[in-house]
Amino acid sequence: MIPDDFCRFADHLAEQARAIVLDHYRTGVAVEDKADMSPVTIADRAAEARMRTLIAERFPDHGMLGEEYGSERDDAEYVWVMDPIDGTKAFICGIPVFGTLIALVREGEPVLGVIDLPVTGERFIGGPARATTLNGRPVRTRPCASVSRAIVATTTPDMFEGEDMERFLRVRRAARLPRYGTDCYGYGLVAAGMIDLVIEADLAPYDYLGPAAVIEGAGGTVTDWEGRPLRLGGGGERIVAAGDPVLHAEVRRMLGEG
Amino acid sequence: MIPDDFCRFADHLAEQARAIVLDHYRTGVAVEDKADMSPVTIADRAAEARMRTLIAERFPDHGMLGEEYGSERDDAEYVWVMDPIDGTKAFICGIPVFGTLIALVREGEPVLGVIDLPVTGERFIGGPARATTLNGRPVRTRPCASVSRAIVATTTPDMFEGEDMERFLRVRRAARLPRYGTDCYGYGLVAAGMIDLVIEADLAPYDYLGPAAVIEGAGGTVTDWEGRPLRLGGGGERIVAAGDPVLHAEVRRMLGEG
Repeated sequence: MIPDDFCRFADHLAEQARAIVLDHYRTGVAVEDKADMSPVTIADRAAEARMRTLIAERFPDHGMLGEEYGSERDDAEYVWVMDPIDGTKAFICGIPVFGTLIALVREGEPVLGVIDLPVTGERFIGGPARATTLNGRPVRTRPCASVSRAIVATTTPDMFEGEDMERFLRVRRAARLPRYGTDCYGYGLVAAGMIDLVIEADLAPYDYLGPAAVIEGAGGTVTDWEGRPLRLGGGGERIVAAGDPVLHAEVRRMLGEG
Repeated sequence: MIPDDFCRFADHLAEQARAIVLDHYRTGVAVEDKADMSPVTIADRAAEARMRTLIAERFPDHGMLGEEYGSERDDAEYVWVMDPIDGTKAFICGIPVFGTLIALVREGEPVLGVIDLPVTGERFIGGPARATTLNGRPVRTRPCASVSRAIVATTTPDMFEGEDMERFLRVRRAARLPRYGTDCYGYGLVAAGMIDLVIEADLAPYDYLGPAAVIEGAGGTVTDWEGRPLRLGGGGERIVAAGDPVLHAEVRRMLGEG
């Protein structure tokens, strides 16, 4: 089990990041953003800096990996992996599907994850040994044993290159309902039993470690397209997240065929 | 000018619809929905029935056209056009970009529109002769005179068939940032000056008349791909909505070329 201490601290990190992110939401409506000082960049950096300060104060021997400021002590037993704003394009458009992602990794393995949606006020926390909650209430993935019954979410088909596009489309065409534009919200909705599947590609550890822990703590399965568990290290990963492990196996086969 | 009376009444309609829609949101998480009694269908019908009752009581000589219950007195001077849940797929997935659309049409022409987002609690009201507000505060589209600087939103590229797909992709490739999965929220975000362009196809009058009025009341331009103003009647329309009229003209040219 993950000590309550870590859970409370992860919740605190997300709460602090949320306040900073919301401060900058929908503040810069001009078309021309200076690339280095757009509201989303300011919010991204400020939220990660705040989380890093809190981690360094509370757990000085833990490591950190963030999208904005890179890694520090990443050979430590515990490493905090952070994406302060996952879905920066959604943030820029004013669409509330972006969020803050946090994972606590122990010896490379995600043991606790957070998906925080600042605008809708939804926070998912959980992991393989810690039942996932949404704002404190337990959530579970739903049964869906066949892709023909599944809702499949993807941020954009543009993330698939070459043959991967054909493989993705094979699943998408077989699914009951496809949905684009989901960013990290898609993973939360799998954990909450609202949708069944997320298929994405070209993701970094800070994109997938938190969501993987959250979904596993709700009863689902998340791996790369080859079925390997997700660990710290690597990058450019292709991810398949399913609420129902039976569905996961079926979709993995579909993604694997040449 | 549109009498305050009509504005207050449109606001009241949206408020009543919102309560019904929220009652059914995220209530049916099972994969197998009975097609005729899914939560989204129940909410859709109940919200439209409620609005129709209110209209018939208050303006018995007005006409009505709704997605669920069809038309009534649609030769009246004033006709209320309603889509109780635009974005039923988003509703089913639990993604808060769906909304209630209302238009008041006078002799075929949309004079007042409402886009109501129940989950985020945002309500846009306005029209050509009534400056658009978001929750009572005025909003304006933003200047964006070139597609190369534009954010373009579309619910899904699957709505474009044959040659229309190529025309859409021409704009999408030229744009600064494309965004999928927006449903009626996209039109609201154009009115609010957060995004610049929505391009869609295969829409019915209850899909586009309310958004067209809202965006025009915020300074933007909405027509079909041929540049014709949007009127009651027709269907299967291809829509281009732009916050900046200069951008609208540019994009219309791009959509029009063979």
